[in-house]
Amino acid sequence: MTATTTNETTFTIDPGKQELFISREFDAPVTLLWRAYTDPDLVFQWLGPRELTAEVDVYDVRPGGSWRYVSVDPSGGRYGFHGVFHDVTPNERIIQTFEFEGLPESGHVLLETALFEALPNNRSRVVSHSVFQSVEDRDGMVASGMSEGVLDGYSRLDELLASLS
Amino acid sequence: MTATTTNETTFTIDPGKQELFISREFDAPVTLLWRAYTDPDLVFQWLGPRELTAEVDVYDVRPGGSWRYVSVDPSGGRYGFHGVFHDVTPNERIIQTFEFEGLPESGHVLLETALFEALPNNRSRVVSHSVFQSVEDRDGMVASGMSEGVLDGYSRLDELLASLS
Repeated sequence: MTATTTNETTFTIDPGKQELFISREFDAPVTLLWRAYTDPDLVFQWLGPRELTAEVDVYDVRPGGSWRYVSVDPSGGRYGFHGVFHDVTPNERIIQTFEFEGLPESGHVLLETALFEALPNNRSRVVSHSVFQSVEDRDGMVASGMSEGVLDGYSRLDELLASLS
Repeated sequence: MTATTTNETTFTIDPGKQELFISREFDAPVTLLWRAYTDPDLVFQWLGPRELTAEVDVYDVRPGGSWRYVSVDPSGGRYGFHGVFHDVTPNERIIQTFEFEGLPESGHVLLETALFEALPNNRSRVVSHSVFQSVEDRDGMVASGMSEGVLDGYSRLDELLASLS
């Protein structure tokens, strides 16, 4: 079984809505998927596009914890992201804020809810739901190439999970 | 001038949307309005319905700070609320998460953005924008009597601002 090709990522981006959903299954138990999402030493082995490297400022995965990292591209371009964790319920749920620091003005923030689910045969699913301050903010993020980064990240996550199990 | 009767509160709650806006002007400079929103000793003199008292657990108004309080009604009923501050920009903006702990299940969270604006003649305006995880969550909060609590709170805030200036 080649996990990187059999698990599809489903994007639900309905026109005119200020939200989007991303659903993905993994060939790994939910406890391992949870570790990959919450252990900073693992998160930055898979999060985001393959050609970027992350400089982690803080990644304090607990209710009330803050997070910030900077993605660096091969030509030295830097892209900062930060937010706070509202809810961290092991193997079940992460609710956090998310802001991209490269926008023309600050204060464009989204609320992301990631729900984790155990599936039969030691498999698992994560459904990530993002709500935006406006339809325009959502469409701007989609147009920025979000889906490519997500697909690349999940492909790297497949590889990481396989190496950990 | 009787501030408590001349300043109207405008609710914008469009059908089928997962957001709502609340706009209110005050007969006080924006710096004073900001103090009333961010000094915990002042916040709980006006926030919420008049007949409730607040027991403040934590109210750490800074980016990455947490907040939690419990509203207590005259018959001893207790209603907890909590969240985290994503953005606190003095006299301009507060972005925070908000969760009511009395719902049948946890994890129903909203993202609230409050924008502060100075107006001529030492007056000010705050526009509060809430985005919800679903239309159902928004409509549930509206049906719970949210507007009465907001109107009562702003009326108390008028009185507090008058006493401070």
